[in-house]
Amino acid sequence: MRYEVEQKHRVGDAAALIARLAARGVTLEPPLEQSDEYFAHPARDFAKTDEALRIRTSGEKCFVTYKGPKLDAATKTRRELELPLHPDDGGARQFAELLAALGFTPVATVRKRRRQFRIRHAGHDVEGSLDDVDGVGGFVELELVADDLSLDEARRVIRELAGELELGPSERRSYLELLLATN
Amino acid sequence: MRYEVEQKHRVGDAAALIARLAARGVTLEPPLEQSDEYFAHPARDFAKTDEALRIRTSGEKCFVTYKGPKLDAATKTRRELELPLHPDDGGARQFAELLAALGFTPVATVRKRRRQFRIRHAGHDVEGSLDDVDGVGGFVELELVADDLSLDEARRVIRELAGELELGPSERRSYLELLLATN
Repeated sequence: MRYEVEQKHRVGDAAALIARLAARGVTLEPPLEQSDEYFAHPARDFAKTDEALRIRTSGEKCFVTYKGPKLDAATKTRRELELPLHPDDGGARQFAELLAALGFTPVATVRKRRRQFRIRHAGHDVEGSLDDVDGVGGFVELELVADDLSLDEARRVIRELAGELELGPSERRSYLELLLATN
Repeated sequence: MRYEVEQKHRVGDAAALIARLAARGVTLEPPLEQSDEYFAHPARDFAKTDEALRIRTSGEKCFVTYKGPKLDAATKTRRELELPLHPDDGGARQFAELLAALGFTPVATVRKRRRQFRIRHAGHDVEGSLDDVDGVGGFVELELVADDLSLDEARRVIRELAGELELGPSERRSYLELLLATN
């Protein structure tokens, strides 16, 4: 069974975390500017249906991402559709115009600098992202995609690693929810 | 003022029309397979709002096209947004999945073989398309885009040309409307 376990933690002191990662031989990718423009549906309340629609601009690339409702509360598995847009043709702007014409309205834009890394723990490769989110603050996300673990084991791997990296309590809300909560 | 005047006529005998075009030195492009999948909006009745949303596959190319309501009954001017999709990545299928996830439902698919041509009349280049539409029949469309004519003059050019080509009365309904009317 394939599990994706993801956990997010607020980071007060990014430099200290980077030093702890360096001590384990982990280096971070250069920061990538990411901008996620979220949209509201003309007839559905995405906050209630647990869906999301956004246009992501990540460095030079653009995507439309749709996230369906969680299929299963335990694993947070959800349907995700991602379509590439043409960045050179103003694809993101054109798609935003199409959404507007169809009655979708912009909700908020989450802007961040993301530095990705990969860290080995208990025989597993964990994907990490150190994010500096405008108006929300610093966070680190840890994600484990595992075929060979039970859900409980995958969670334990992530929890142990978070402990070793001296991360605080986890944050369950999305960046969009956190941003909207500050307004 | 820029006018787009478009007129469509049913063609009973395509071979006879092709011969009349040939007599004027006009040759047709090779036929292009076009497939237009139309969608209904989750909260708006596009038939009433005079809008349309479709995925067009034309030969090797794919587009999403949105047509807004006619801004002006006289010139049939309407807002049109066209976004290219990635045909090699299954862009059309992915976009159809995204629309389905957002509550858009397929209405019908208009399939046709289109042969384009260009014909000079009264000092103007008129764009033509000879279409063989599945379930609907043969039609020819004539379109004039003119900056230097009044609307009445542009209409007169198209009407005169239609007369010289011995076309019958014009058809105002779209191929989608014609297809739905046969069901």
